[in-house]
Amino acid sequence: MIARRKFIANSTLFVLGGIALPINSCSGMKKGKLPQEGLKLNFEPYNLQLKHVFTLAGSSRSTTPVMLTKIDYQGFTGYGEASMPPYLGENHETASKFLSSLDLRQFKNPFRMDEILEYVDSIAPGNAAAKASIDIALHDLTGKIMRQPWHRIWGFSPENTPDTSFTIGIDTKEVVIQKVKEAAEFKILKVKLGRDNDKEMIETIRSATNVPLCVDVNQGWKDKQMALDMAHWLSKQGVVFMEQPMPKEAKDDIAWLTQHSPLPIIADEAIQRLADVKDTIGIYSGINIKLMKCTGMREAHKMLSLARANNMKVMIGCMTETSCAVSAAAQLSPKTDWADLDGNLLISNDVYKGVDVVNGKITLNNLPGIGIEKL
Amino acid sequence: MIARRKFIANSTLFVLGGIALPINSCSGMKKGKLPQEGLKLNFEPYNLQLKHVFTLAGSSRSTTPVMLTKIDYQGFTGYGEASMPPYLGENHETASKFLSSLDLRQFKNPFRMDEILEYVDSIAPGNAAAKASIDIALHDLTGKIMRQPWHRIWGFSPENTPDTSFTIGIDTKEVVIQKVKEAAEFKILKVKLGRDNDKEMIETIRSATNVPLCVDVNQGWKDKQMALDMAHWLSKQGVVFMEQPMPKEAKDDIAWLTQHSPLPIIADEAIQRLADVKDTIGIYSGINIKLMKCTGMREAHKMLSLARANNMKVMIGCMTETSCAVSAAAQLSPKTDWADLDGNLLISNDVYKGVDVVNGKITLNNLPGIGIEKL
Repeated sequence: MIARRKFIANSTLFVLGGIALPINSCSGMKKGKLPQEGLKLNFEPYNLQLKHVFTLAGSSRSTTPVMLTKIDYQGFTGYGEASMPPYLGENHETASKFLSSLDLRQFKNPFRMDEILEYVDSIAPGNAAAKASIDIALHDLTGKIMRQPWHRIWGFSPENTPDTSFTIGIDTKEVVIQKVKEAAEFKILKVKLGRDNDKEMIETIRSATNVPLCVDVNQGWKDKQMALDMAHWLSKQGVVFMEQPMPKEAKDDIAWLTQHSPLPIIADEAIQRLADVKDTIGIYSGINIKLMKCTGMREAHKMLSLARANNMKVMIGCMTETSCAVSAAAQLSPKTDWADLDGNLLISNDVYKGVDVVNGKITLNNLPGIGIEKL
Repeated sequence: MIARRKFIANSTLFVLGGIALPINSCSGMKKGKLPQEGLKLNFEPYNLQLKHVFTLAGSSRSTTPVMLTKIDYQGFTGYGEASMPPYLGENHETASKFLSSLDLRQFKNPFRMDEILEYVDSIAPGNAAAKASIDIALHDLTGKIMRQPWHRIWGFSPENTPDTSFTIGIDTKEVVIQKVKEAAEFKILKVKLGRDNDKEMIETIRSATNVPLCVDVNQGWKDKQMALDMAHWLSKQGVVFMEQPMPKEAKDDIAWLTQHSPLPIIADEAIQRLADVKDTIGIYSGINIKLMKCTGMREAHKMLSLARANNMKVMIGCMTETSCAVSAAAQLSPKTDWADLDGNLLISNDVYKGVDVVNGKITLNNLPGIGIEKL
């Protein structure tokens, strides 16, 4: 009923540049006036507090810097986010510099994504997360104007979302078992490997649960025969796929491993953007798409189509993020084989409510755009 | 002002299954009632009258049978069309049989295109045009619910549409010159070759105009060296690309020709659907996408993305069609290199008004869906 009342309140309509828009009662515009203001971008640095210290092969941390973006247009607001774990090279300063250099006011129509995102991409190389924060806000904004969530605009069946994996960080045996118990809701757990205690880590988890596992080696193994032996061993432990077992440069070794492995081998560090997909064909079984690496939902959607056309598996991943970027990624998840969208569950200071996890399964809502509400 | 008044008249809103819909004043539904009726399909056979007898390498005709479809849903109507030139194997009887076998009432939400179109595709093999007539109607319907044209939903820049080519049929020298004069508005002309008078045909056209030409050989040449000699000769005559010069089975010869030809070589008969795109990579310079062969806009959009990801040229083509199917195809045209969307211009009994050609250039409008109005 709340949704219905809200839509009725927005029911006076006018046409702007051919786009039919309901006038938002807060917009202060006079009926019949056709302002030609462009897109208004705002951004704000924020630090995500992690519930647990997060340990990768090589580093650990307890906060993640993000940039929260907002694009206003004719009474509508689209939200976006850049998540910037330090190992990817972006931070508050780089994002602030990048976003400050953009002139989005020149764009009078948020639907012209080809043009807007090409402009954004052309301003500077890199800055993938900052670029994604614009792409996500534009999708949220245009979805709100169309009054539909993007999973629906893309024609997906929302109940086809996969279970999300939940990452169990490397820790002492007791803490790992405790974490596994706390993660009882999840139907698949993700384990970071690539240290010298890989088998021990798996055995510890297996002592506490029988749910399927997936592993992310973060390029940690150097020998292909050892990697294949591990694949066979992990397969027997109920592991269902393996991310980036070896350094991305070791293409021949990875192709060999993929050919012989009982588990699908998924590209993670080896893939950033659309142009990289073709380099993974014949080497990996599939790709892990992350909005913060590929510059956002538009390019992610293209990567998904391209991978599918090449009969590759697709997983959708995330960084430590608020429900904003996670909900944006979740719009694509009905078409993926696997999802690793637990980034918002790992933080204690989320600022949005969005996609839900119900019995371990990603559960999309009917809210327009990327499906979030500000808390 | 008409558009604005229409939107205001539709401004009472309600929420159905999470989709915010304006209540159409003609729908007869009571406010607050949430009917769960499914999609209602209607179809009607129609015969297009050609302004001129149409001659290909191998056949000629003066009418084209089409099936006009209509999907009604909650006061909205989406229009579609199947165009069935006889050489593609569909006709009023096959389309009627196929469409009668569909139960679209089971679908309560027209946005679920993955699911609906997978069902439609699964009912019987072939029937690509009949399938496209459903896909087009669904796009028109959902675009109308979102109140946006699909070129905008897809994020394209509508002014990037190419000039459309206009086909000059094979005829006597005097008639050809007359047709070329009548086609003075067009910035590129298409010539059907593959007979024994190819050079004569080009020379006749060149005696009347200097505009760029493109040629469609319809698999008419059998010898690769002859085809290459023609490519060089045509290049000097101001021809800019060549469609399907040799039989689609002659892959090695075509790959050789593409490698040596001064003109891009475009796949036409060699390509039907998304799954065929990969077989054209490395053989052709690009592909000609036709809605009636690829089952509609959704698959066409994927083919476009896939071809682009492989750095291939893309043209969008059509059959003899009303402005319905031509306007549907035109939604994709801002992202194509070339367009051959003259099908509606060749008939004398169109039943829709849609995409326009202004000074030879495809000109999209702001109407929602596929951008048409019933005449």
